[in-house]
Amino acid sequence: MQFPRGFRAAAMAAGIKPSGKTDLSCVVSDTDCAWAFAGTRSTTAAASVLRNRELAGAGGAVRALVVNAGVANAATGRKGAQDNAVMAESLASVLDVPEDAVLSASTGIIGHLLPMDKVLSGVEHLPTELGTAALPFATAIMTTDTRPKTAHATLGSGARIVGTAKGSGMIHPDMATMFAFAFTDAAVDQGALRAAFPAIIARTFNAVTVDGDTSTSDMAVVFANGQAGATDEAEFLAALEGVMRDLARQIAADGEGATKLLTVRVAGARSEAEALAAARTCCVSPLLKSAVHGSDPNWGRVIMAVGRSGAGVDIEKMTVAVQGTPVFAGKPLHYDAAAVSASMKAEEVVFEVDLGVGDARGEAWGCDLSAEYVSINADYTT
Amino acid sequence: MQFPRGFRAAAMAAGIKPSGKTDLSCVVSDTDCAWAFAGTRSTTAAASVLRNRELAGAGGAVRALVVNAGVANAATGRKGAQDNAVMAESLASVLDVPEDAVLSASTGIIGHLLPMDKVLSGVEHLPTELGTAALPFATAIMTTDTRPKTAHATLGSGARIVGTAKGSGMIHPDMATMFAFAFTDAAVDQGALRAAFPAIIARTFNAVTVDGDTSTSDMAVVFANGQAGATDEAEFLAALEGVMRDLARQIAADGEGATKLLTVRVAGARSEAEALAAARTCCVSPLLKSAVHGSDPNWGRVIMAVGRSGAGVDIEKMTVAVQGTPVFAGKPLHYDAAAVSASMKAEEVVFEVDLGVGDARGEAWGCDLSAEYVSINADYTT
Repeated sequence: MQFPRGFRAAAMAAGIKPSGKTDLSCVVSDTDCAWAFAGTRSTTAAASVLRNRELAGAGGAVRALVVNAGVANAATGRKGAQDNAVMAESLASVLDVPEDAVLSASTGIIGHLLPMDKVLSGVEHLPTELGTAALPFATAIMTTDTRPKTAHATLGSGARIVGTAKGSGMIHPDMATMFAFAFTDAAVDQGALRAAFPAIIARTFNAVTVDGDTSTSDMAVVFANGQAGATDEAEFLAALEGVMRDLARQIAADGEGATKLLTVRVAGARSEAEALAAARTCCVSPLLKSAVHGSDPNWGRVIMAVGRSGAGVDIEKMTVAVQGTPVFAGKPLHYDAAAVSASMKAEEVVFEVDLGVGDARGEAWGCDLSAEYVSINADYTT
Repeated sequence: MQFPRGFRAAAMAAGIKPSGKTDLSCVVSDTDCAWAFAGTRSTTAAASVLRNRELAGAGGAVRALVVNAGVANAATGRKGAQDNAVMAESLASVLDVPEDAVLSASTGIIGHLLPMDKVLSGVEHLPTELGTAALPFATAIMTTDTRPKTAHATLGSGARIVGTAKGSGMIHPDMATMFAFAFTDAAVDQGALRAAFPAIIARTFNAVTVDGDTSTSDMAVVFANGQAGATDEAEFLAALEGVMRDLARQIAADGEGATKLLTVRVAGARSEAEALAAARTCCVSPLLKSAVHGSDPNWGRVIMAVGRSGAGVDIEKMTVAVQGTPVFAGKPLHYDAAAVSASMKAEEVVFEVDLGVGDARGEAWGCDLSAEYVSINADYTT
């Protein structure tokens, strides 16, 4: 996949990851970008999130993004904040753009300082390797991801949107997931983009969960350099949401230890927010995730999770279906448990729930919980 | 352990659990009890929770409690609500006490109806077997628990408090955990007991979590029959909290698949509620739980979980210690990772966190996350 017009990227192995895989990358636009940013609501947010949020507030245009993987540079004190700024400003210097025109992102172990010698010599080198392929960038931002995540859309005007994301564990975004970057050559008004962004995030990245753990480093950024000229705004926003949704589903499917994608569709809610809360609480439930892993149609855990979400429910009108088979409609229904269990041995398991109290809908995505999740995370640092 | 004066109990295998273990039990007081009740905040609460809550609101005295395990009688529609009332009222009839003087509780699979023939013949039989031992009752209320949970205290007045609890999975109480019952012969004013109960619950059962999943059937009830006469109220409430806290820790230590108790103590918070939220968010984090399982001193996950909890933090003043070893104080500290990892191979792993923004404290309990949790829950119904 190629980036939209005017965007180029580079990736390299700078030696931050012990594995020797690519771990430092950047994306550069030839011209100024309108942009929108969403960052984690965590009260212990990483230095990169705090700096980007401040730049978003200032409202200026941006030209580039630098990302490292392997070290999250979170909980690293004032030194960590300085290192983050130096990483971004060094790239700005090499590119000869304003310091405030470069955003940064770091992912990996919390509480470790960046190896700044490796980072700075890498940042010097990166701009010499710029190319138009998106895959090297999408690969270099990975940590425990098993595959790079990209998605794209082409608009009627010829403008394109290319999205990339990473994330596999510590995924329960509370504003945006740990790294979703979208790049477009459509000309989009920054104010309109920022006005629409929260609702898109709510229906895409904030609707995905792997383990209920919100990262310190979550962020989603859209970069629009306008090189394809004017485009229909509604079409653009719908396409952007489609790209974001595609990436969100890819993150869920690639959850740490995941063998299946879990999709929960909630209808009949009082509000979209309650529908999303009910759907997401189902997707984060370790009990429902374990049942999905074992292809056990234990729909009582959907009842439990919806109840815990706080969403309004009329249990006498509530319905639940598993892989298309109705199992509850105000009371338990008779169904062929063996057949439903067999149907759950699939790449995607879908629960459909109607809360019986309104017309609002929402959908969320997660994954099954496997023993592999535990082994991945039991000895991450030692 | 013997029940306090005037309380007797019976337990039997009524055939509700396929395993043939004891699954139907009751506790009866010779005389009227003052009582306090806390039930799940779930919007899909079980029939027993709804009926007990209604009786608590009516304010009358109670005489007995009937409990079944194996079937939760939740999400069972109007038939389930009727069955629950019939179970309680049948015991009332056999005991010749008012229908509203018998509480009920059901635990097990959600969405299955009670086998009422077995329940009713059991309820007829139970009162013929009443004795003063607490262990048979504590055993008959278990589901995936590996051991019965009891705790007790003796007051200066000679009054006693005997507490029993069950719970191993679907444990993230949002008002009370799935079954904590305390019985006392102390004479306690019902108004004073009910006034003090929410704060005790907040610091005990609502501070324990196994998997973040709030049950439909959680409840905590204290029964005080007054047969030991008047007692010092403050002493009684402190002793009650001690019994509740002991049971809460037992539930965490016996979490499904658990090999270790996880304790998180938070100090320096703006409020007790924020301290408890931060501590509990640490205890529910699958990432921190996995690290505890692997004896990995990955304290960055404490930073993450505290950040996600929403508790106020001054990260420059924040401190974290693992098993007594300081690892973070506004910035990462040097420590012997191998030695700390070795110290985590213990029955209890303690994290101490200071948020640096106030004087309030809180403590929560959980357990490690093991592959065994997944296998227990992957095929519970099929």
